[in-house]
Amino acid sequence: MKITHIEHLGIAVKSIEDALTYYEDVLGLKCYAIEEVADQRVKTAFIKVGDTKIELLESTDPKGPVGKFIEKRGEGIHHIAFAVEDGVAEALKEAEEKGIRLVDTQPRKGAEGLNIAFLHPKSTVGVLTELCEHP
Amino acid sequence: MKITHIEHLGIAVKSIEDALTYYEDVLGLKCYAIEEVADQRVKTAFIKVGDTKIELLESTDPKGPVGKFIEKRGEGIHHIAFAVEDGVAEALKEAEEKGIRLVDTQPRKGAEGLNIAFLHPKSTVGVLTELCEHP
Repeated sequence: MKITHIEHLGIAVKSIEDALTYYEDVLGLKCYAIEEVADQRVKTAFIKVGDTKIELLESTDPKGPVGKFIEKRGEGIHHIAFAVEDGVAEALKEAEEKGIRLVDTQPRKGAEGLNIAFLHPKSTVGVLTELCEHP
Repeated sequence: MKITHIEHLGIAVKSIEDALTYYEDVLGLKCYAIEEVADQRVKTAFIKVGDTKIELLESTDPKGPVGKFIEKRGEGIHHIAFAVEDGVAEALKEAEEKGIRLVDTQPRKGAEGLNIAFLHPKSTVGVLTELCEHP
């Protein structure tokens, strides 16, 4: 597959409001949008940093993926998302052929209208990995 | 402080050799250097992705920071490093004034000759955070 850059880093936080105090007031970064992604049961705050983004993920459901992550491991980096040039469907096919375990067998819609799919951390050296493309 | 981009992401792995099979053969990225950082008790493999880098960290000492991290949490993202434009010493001073707990009170030398310093994850919403600059 052809990865151009890290599209974003997903960081699980208990409270976007509290986390933004750190990211904006201490680090001097700027949140440009907040969006609820019902499918993932999260509220997401977007922060642009160079050619990538930080996405702060606040769970809207303790039983959702981010809620369970925080319960188990506490706040911290949840996943890394790579932008693929040759399309998510093609990249998934290639990953599967190379023995990678897929969370999503087909692309679906993620935050900001991107086509996304996740690879399983058991196959990706411990890092939950998302592939994404602008449609 | 003035952050320009994410300089790198540090990812703790048990074996750089095994991890590179995934990063190179599956993701199609390329490792351009491997360096031992004695101070941190790690061997580091560098992979450029867009304007940032992935640094794979293999512990050279089970009692070192990455060895302990893997023992406790398994392989995964270990830290995020931001490039600061106004210098690490200045950024540290500003962070401390804003109540952030510092791991390093002064810049020291990191991989690739950068000046670096770490902020404590207790103050940074759960993410071990490095500030760095080219000297």
